[in-house]
Amino acid sequence: MRLRNKPWAAELIENHPEVVESDPQKWKGKWTERFEKTSPLFVEVGTGKGQFVSRMAAAYPNTNFIGVEKYESVLVTGVQRVIEEPKSNLLFLQEDVHNITDFFSEGEVDRLYINFTDPWPKNKHAKRRLTHESFLKKYDEILTDTGEIHFKTDNQGLFEYSLKSFTHYGLKLKNVSLDLHSSDMEDNIMTEYEEKFSSKGMRIFRVEAYR
Amino acid sequence: MRLRNKPWAAELIENHPEVVESDPQKWKGKWTERFEKTSPLFVEVGTGKGQFVSRMAAAYPNTNFIGVEKYESVLVTGVQRVIEEPKSNLLFLQEDVHNITDFFSEGEVDRLYINFTDPWPKNKHAKRRLTHESFLKKYDEILTDTGEIHFKTDNQGLFEYSLKSFTHYGLKLKNVSLDLHSSDMEDNIMTEYEEKFSSKGMRIFRVEAYR
Repeated sequence: MRLRNKPWAAELIENHPEVVESDPQKWKGKWTERFEKTSPLFVEVGTGKGQFVSRMAAAYPNTNFIGVEKYESVLVTGVQRVIEEPKSNLLFLQEDVHNITDFFSEGEVDRLYINFTDPWPKNKHAKRRLTHESFLKKYDEILTDTGEIHFKTDNQGLFEYSLKSFTHYGLKLKNVSLDLHSSDMEDNIMTEYEEKFSSKGMRIFRVEAYR
Repeated sequence: MRLRNKPWAAELIENHPEVVESDPQKWKGKWTERFEKTSPLFVEVGTGKGQFVSRMAAAYPNTNFIGVEKYESVLVTGVQRVIEEPKSNLLFLQEDVHNITDFFSEGEVDRLYINFTDPWPKNKHAKRRLTHESFLKKYDEILTDTGEIHFKTDNQGLFEYSLKSFTHYGLKLKNVSLDLHSSDMEDNIMTEYEEKFSSKGMRIFRVEAYR
């Protein structure tokens, strides 16, 4: 992820608390009250510019979505998108995924999306991969018993690692696709990266992990 | 697998009981006595023409190998190979994998290989795939507690299915490779199919499943 310095981003985010919740700890365990409707809660970690989560929110009005992104210079694009087309079932958090258990309580999340996350290809950086055991432990805590992790990437090494990591943690796998865009995919909503890479003919890998 | 009618195959197999054990039930639970050395026992199911298991036996003299193949017209090629170059740590069984628990006892097998097995692409034939739950149950019975299943295929659909099937059964995954011949593989011994398909630039998928 290339980060551009956008000095105005912080201000824009701050001025739109209806889009970016600035005090997520306040809503821990009661996110349902923060949304218009009581609906299942789907969270995307590393939401980037927010295309995926925005389109999901538009496609599934009876699901509440939260996109978590650390970098304001990236997130701000998603925020602008939602300012233009407001969605009552979508919120962003400008937060580090490391702290996810601080703002979601046990079993509060119904589904977790991890899309085209940084592969951190060097072994010494494995701990930073969002499918590392230390993250899976946090996801496991906040997901419901029937919760699922939906994972997509174009990075073969990260996918291989993640299959190992998911199953080593005790998760099972389903709906495995080793070439998503050549398979019978239904209703696949694409991220910015996915549009770019798949249009270049690159393989997209996808899997769902569950208890 | 194209089967050619070879009327002489049955006779050749029958005439070489030192290569093809004709009464495997007799050795159930005591295969170690059937071999020259007491060594770990690795079994390949659907061994075909036996190139993989023969080369493995040559490369690993301190492991005993058994290749199981139902069709005599295919197996006979492997038998001829071993007649020419005898190997005291390799045996073939002309048997159906369905009956594998009839000739191996609980925890008798240290590793199980499944290589380029028939993909049976239609859903209604899923039960025939050698990674179907009903087979995994049999493998699980005959494998030691630390036993592993090593699986290779060029068939993407079968690989996707098998990842799901392994993990649904409760197995974990390691050493996942989604493009074996472009990865840092060490000591990869190829099957006949693998040589053919990988030389055409086709992707080979590989995984190890364990408890």
